[in-house]
Amino acid sequence: MRNHEAAQSTQPIYRVGRIASYFATLFIASAIVTAAPALAGVKGATHGGKSAAANEAKRSQSIHKEVFLERKTPAYWRVTLHNPPFNIFGPETIPQLNEVITAIETDPDVKVVVFDSDVPGFFLTHYDFVPPLAQSTSLQSGTTGLHPLPDMLVRLSRAPVVSITEIRGRATGVGSELALASDMRFASREKAVLSQWEVGAALVPGGGPMARLPRLIGRGRALEVLLGADDVNGELAERYGYVNRSLPDEELNGFVDALATRIATFDKQAIADTKRLVDFSSLPSDAEIGAGWDAFVTSVQRPQAQTKIKRLMELGLQTNADVETRLGDYTATLGH
Amino acid sequence: MRNHEAAQSTQPIYRVGRIASYFATLFIASAIVTAAPALAGVKGATHGGKSAAANEAKRSQSIHKEVFLERKTPAYWRVTLHNPPFNIFGPETIPQLNEVITAIETDPDVKVVVFDSDVPGFFLTHYDFVPPLAQSTSLQSGTTGLHPLPDMLVRLSRAPVVSITEIRGRATGVGSELALASDMRFASREKAVLSQWEVGAALVPGGGPMARLPRLIGRGRALEVLLGADDVNGELAERYGYVNRSLPDEELNGFVDALATRIATFDKQAIADTKRLVDFSSLPSDAEIGAGWDAFVTSVQRPQAQTKIKRLMELGLQTNADVETRLGDYTATLGH
Amino acid sequence: MRNHEAAQSTQPIYRVGRIASYFATLFIASAIVTAAPALAGVKGATHGGKSAAANEAKRSQSIHKEVFLERKTPAYWRVTLHNPPFNIFGPETIPQLNEVITAIETDPDVKVVVFDSDVPGFFLTHYDFVPPLAQSTSLQSGTTGLHPLPDMLVRLSRAPVVSITEIRGRATGVGSELALASDMRFASREKAVLSQWEVGAALVPGGGPMARLPRLIGRGRALEVLLGADDVNGELAERYGYVNRSLPDEELNGFVDALATRIATFDKQAIADTKRLVDFSSLPSDAEIGAGWDAFVTSVQRPQAQTKIKRLMELGLQTNADVETRLGDYTATLGH
Repeated sequence: MRNHEAAQSTQPIYRVGRIASYFATLFIASAIVTAAPALAGVKGATHGGKSAAANEAKRSQSIHKEVFLERKTPAYWRVTLHNPPFNIFGPETIPQLNEVITAIETDPDVKVVVFDSDVPGFFLTHYDFVPPLAQSTSLQSGTTGLHPLPDMLVRLSRAPVVSITEIRGRATGVGSELALASDMRFASREKAVLSQWEVGAALVPGGGPMARLPRLIGRGRALEVLLGADDVNGELAERYGYVNRSLPDEELNGFVDALATRIATFDKQAIADTKRLVDFSSLPSDAEIGAGWDAFVTSVQRPQAQTKIKRLMELGLQTNADVETRLGDYTATLGH
Repeated sequence: MRNHEAAQSTQPIYRVGRIASYFATLFIASAIVTAAPALAGVKGATHGGKSAAANEAKRSQSIHKEVFLERKTPAYWRVTLHNPPFNIFGPETIPQLNEVITAIETDPDVKVVVFDSDVPGFFLTHYDFVPPLAQSTSLQSGTTGLHPLPDMLVRLSRAPVVSITEIRGRATGVGSELALASDMRFASREKAVLSQWEVGAALVPGGGPMARLPRLIGRGRALEVLLGADDVNGELAERYGYVNRSLPDEELNGFVDALATRIATFDKQAIADTKRLVDFSSLPSDAEIGAGWDAFVTSVQRPQAQTKIKRLMELGLQTNADVETRLGDYTATLGH
Repeated sequence: MRNHEAAQSTQPIYRVGRIASYFATLFIASAIVTAAPALAGVKGATHGGKSAAANEAKRSQSIHKEVFLERKTPAYWRVTLHNPPFNIFGPETIPQLNEVITAIETDPDVKVVVFDSDVPGFFLTHYDFVPPLAQSTSLQSGTTGLHPLPDMLVRLSRAPVVSITEIRGRATGVGSELALASDMRFASREKAVLSQWEVGAALVPGGGPMARLPRLIGRGRALEVLLGADDVNGELAERYGYVNRSLPDEELNGFVDALATRIATFDKQAIADTKRLVDFSSLPSDAEIGAGWDAFVTSVQRPQAQTKIKRLMELGLQTNADVETRLGDYTATLGH
């Protein structure tokens, strides 16, 4: 039934069928290959010898809470991302984040929301390659008509609430895309790393950075981030305008908290009206974001991407902290 | 007769009537409350114990010249803003600035114009809240069909002449908007402070920064400036691109003067043709600027703004130099 | 026959006739005036006492190879600009550069191309003022319908290949425009100088900077570069975002080489698809680029430009290294 509905959707991403099965096979095979990853002693890797297959089983149960909402005051919320050891973003994360975005959109009192992470070394990283692709592509479209991942991001950008990402650790792939979709970004000068690593794995990024980065930092630096596909540290991220500012790590939380506390005293209608007028010239259309998502789904099914992702999984993507931490280095080793 | 014309105008800002009367009452009441402000010993405050009511009386006479034009050469003009102690911008400033903008547009010889201030500590600050709103909203539209304030700013942006703001002291509200409407901005590293403080008073800024800031400095930093609504010092203003450069205060005038003198030797037609082609992609439409002005006029009539402005007037807005100098701090004290 | 075709072209730039003859006279006269230039002992000037007229004769033979393509690997190419002593760009350069651009567009294997110069002190400078204008304006339009110079630049921007300029020495006029049309720019902190000097000679720049600079660095800094028309050193170029980064001179080549080598291992389709989506919001239309070229052709025929160019030629433009090296200073001496 779901497949039938999907086939009739106007969203072109729902081409799953045979290819998706291939995916499922590939990813599960990869997961088995990479069981017993070499994580001992690596900071930020806390799940010890637990196998990726076990992780997958746990994920399938959908009992794993990864997105935590704290209402510090009615006007000032914190959303904390918690999916150790690497804060990977998977299909199971989507409804959890969607619930928070919907609350942000509809709550009458919230004026400012800060996104952070409590996983050492990782703000939010890439999409989960273990579940079959169909588990992602068969999800029902959001209210914008987009796939729920880009749907949530564009809704966050347009919400009548100030969104701030506080970036400590890696913001790679979806992590960078969530940061770019939020209104402001502040990073730890020492501990933040941003990247759109996807082209290094023969993928096109899916969560909107082709639309958002050139508008934010100009075409030249956007193309370097996207086509160089390498890690960007906190200092360079500020110099490029990828984040508003990078602050000394010990000052980051205090700075963001003071800014959010300040904004929480302001008038919600004035915030919303001012933001909406900024949106006019600075937000891409949903169609442009949708085109990026479609390009991602197309790219992930191509043999070139399959080969590179498989090789990265063998090297330890999603299991070996060194691969996750130095992802930009590993993508340069995959060959042509 | 004027009211009748206004009611038939296509400009939606001319909704004055009852609300404007309410404004007049509020503002005059505020002015009385804040008589005898505590200005003793504050740098930049030179009017001593003169009451705000007396100031208003003086303004009403319209004899107070605030905008001074000096033709240094036929090609290089300086416009100096002079409305001590705070360089507040009121309805009486509009025809004076309009006269200068018209001269810039029509003079056959002028190639470059520099805007500066001779009021210590203040480049140009916010709109005057003492006169009744109707005194502003009943002004005849400019040639663009916009209210004369945004009308002048968009005309300055499109004039076939290079406009440069030399910012020493506070450029808050209208001051920031004039700077953003000019072609280039150079600031004193030590003495410049830029801000769009309006959201802190439950207002939407009216002179175009929602349109101009994201195009100039990117969405993220624009939203921080507009929704954080805090003071931005010279160093950060350069880092964000809010100004072209911030220079050591003792070098600022020499730098701007050399640049203007240089440009004054160039060919006027080449300047105009080159600028017009830059305009193509970098200027917002008048409609977008008009939407921002309308949002300001709407916001200033809302009770939330009335309450916050009244409280600021009681604290000493427009009379107490400490409030004007640390406006970003005071707006954070106004409560929800 | 070619002239006949040109007269029927929809491109408005083919207005040559009488004016172009005037040009030929002027430029040849200038060349004679400036024979035996004072180049002795000037670094970067290697043609000794060779007269400009002799240079022109040599150019007319079209045997002078100025653009060298090295395929370092099938995926990573280098294009080296070599027209000593000043890397001036003339009508004879156009077919040579066009051949390279066509190869970049059509080769199935190339993924990244780096543009550099082997002429000390000069990356690529301005258009050659010695040949008659008709020699440039009578060239057949490119596939975009634009004059072949802007045609090549817009095709480079849209090619499914990563283009990088490695800037050491002056990138003035066409040099800056080639850099802006490429995807990324890296500069020598000590030895790079960028400029759009044209307005200083009563010209409108022709290769697209009015379209590209404001999108890249914002309206304010773009207007300063274009209307100040002065030299921009490596440090300021990075601060303004005119280049991605400026690196210490001894690190520049290694940095760019590592980046290009990295990108050359990535998947060509992922590069192309990602870049095309960035193009969507960040590239000007061909019509906008065409308008800039037309404005240049119009400007160069005006008496004001003729007078200034003639004076620059007398001072030693194209023959005296001091004029080429400090072009921004010389344009300020030309009078009103």
